[in-house]
Amino acid sequence: MAMSTYAPFLFEYWPQLLTLTVAYYIVTVILKVKNVNLQKSVVPKKKYISPDIQAEIKDEDDVDDTDFNFKSALPEDLAHVPLSSYKRYSEEVMLERSLEFYQDMNNRRTLRYYSSEPVPREVIENIIRTAGTAPSGAHTEPWTFVVLSDPDLKQRVRELIEEEEEINYTKRMGNQWTKDLQPLKTDWVKEYLTEAPYIILVFKQAYGYNDDGTKKNHYYNELSVAISAGLLMAAIQRAGLVTLTSTPLNCGPGIRTLLNRPNNEKLTLLLPVGYPAKDATVPNLTRKPLKEIMVWL
Amino acid sequence: MAMSTYAPFLFEYWPQLLTLTVAYYIVTVILKVKNVNLQKSVVPKKKYISPDIQAEIKDEDDVDDTDFNFKSALPEDLAHVPLSSYKRYSEEVMLERSLEFYQDMNNRRTLRYYSSEPVPREVIENIIRTAGTAPSGAHTEPWTFVVLSDPDLKQRVRELIEEEEEINYTKRMGNQWTKDLQPLKTDWVKEYLTEAPYIILVFKQAYGYNDDGTKKNHYYNELSVAISAGLLMAAIQRAGLVTLTSTPLNCGPGIRTLLNRPNNEKLTLLLPVGYPAKDATVPNLTRKPLKEIMVWL
Repeated sequence: MAMSTYAPFLFEYWPQLLTLTVAYYIVTVILKVKNVNLQKSVVPKKKYISPDIQAEIKDEDDVDDTDFNFKSALPEDLAHVPLSSYKRYSEEVMLERSLEFYQDMNNRRTLRYYSSEPVPREVIENIIRTAGTAPSGAHTEPWTFVVLSDPDLKQRVRELIEEEEEINYTKRMGNQWTKDLQPLKTDWVKEYLTEAPYIILVFKQAYGYNDDGTKKNHYYNELSVAISAGLLMAAIQRAGLVTLTSTPLNCGPGIRTLLNRPNNEKLTLLLPVGYPAKDATVPNLTRKPLKEIMVWL
Repeated sequence: MAMSTYAPFLFEYWPQLLTLTVAYYIVTVILKVKNVNLQKSVVPKKKYISPDIQAEIKDEDDVDDTDFNFKSALPEDLAHVPLSSYKRYSEEVMLERSLEFYQDMNNRRTLRYYSSEPVPREVIENIIRTAGTAPSGAHTEPWTFVVLSDPDLKQRVRELIEEEEEINYTKRMGNQWTKDLQPLKTDWVKEYLTEAPYIILVFKQAYGYNDDGTKKNHYYNELSVAISAGLLMAAIQRAGLVTLTSTPLNCGPGIRTLLNRPNNEKLTLLLPVGYPAKDATVPNLTRKPLKEIMVWL
């Protein structure tokens, strides 16, 4: 079989073709290896990905969404009844009430310095009850509020968070985030985690369970839980207590393990709650005026 | 150049090798094409992806996160001042206030039936002001509240949403989501969008701009905006008005274009606001008791 007859091109250029083929294989393998590394790396070196996007990507990854039961999460014959809980106010009272509530909420400040003075548990219970009135996708109520008051547990949570946060500040977060936080004087030392009488940990339930043990989808759980956190903060302010909205980066799994929380729960927010310390200070910030946040059409 | 001498293996098996190489190329190309298709498809056929996760994935994709300015978003010499806005209450008053606020919020119901009766604009302004007091990552305040009262505009938004929602209900959402919504009697006809005197559209700003035109990172913008929506809802309830938390699936870009909103804004929530219709009904739902949502440790 004379190769020059059957395949003159191949005969002429086989060394080049062989080189090309081998090169193609090598490049493919390199690209594959690189790809896997990029996906596994929590902190990409060059392209900046904000911590919340990272957290979302990480979070949603662990959800196994194959084992769901396709029956309705609510009773199918759910009755519809007249709206009886509604209270209507006169325009004058509406104006007064909306202004008073705005002024109260506008007095809220994020606080880093807490008194260790105790706070009645019943107040905390009313605050959590209030958070539980939030709307949620298909009324799934995908939240768990874990309240820490045990000093040992608070100490262990603090150690866990400070350890991770030191890495966050020095390595993970990158120039921009640390620079943006500088004026707020935050760092990885979180004294408030042991000073405040309570730490509220807000967990979103990525999914739930039906009575028969099958999984139940929790639609819009991230959004629902964050709205619920808004009500939680309003309730804390209403009661005359102070808090701080923190999102401890990369601490979720460690804290979940420490507190024995189930796999479907993901830590969304951590809020110390208590009275402010006597000498508490706040950064001298202002809020955007109405015309910068509202558009009438 | 005798090929049989320089490369006896290649000489012997060149047809097989050629076939293998060509086959490898073809398989690679097919895999690539398939991959692209999977990523572009909004509704995967088999693996169920919940609408919120889809929305998040879609959303984050449009953000170009390469052009950010690494200077601090806040003044670097930001002063820290004593906390002066704080009001402390006695334990008795705290208990009273926390209970009263819980009862008020617990009376809130998601409502689908609205009266077209007008509501004073100043009340709406106080409500938006309240939402603007929410905390946000590095105090970026990444929100825009667009309030629609123009009947034509409300009609056009309604048409846009109903068109998409019909596709959502009949094609996109899948068995499970529609089944879970059935007891709530929701469908793609949204009369409230033209009945309610106001529609509040909550946009998250995926990023912002510095004074010099460079982009500014809005950390945790999704979370911040949802917390702000929690305050918005509390303020609506406080004023004696009703609302409904809706997340119009796939309508964001259309509405953004209709309302001429900039590229960095993504529609997060849409809330009709007004008085309830005279004969308004609600599904006969209850909320989880405290012990199911709170854990003391």
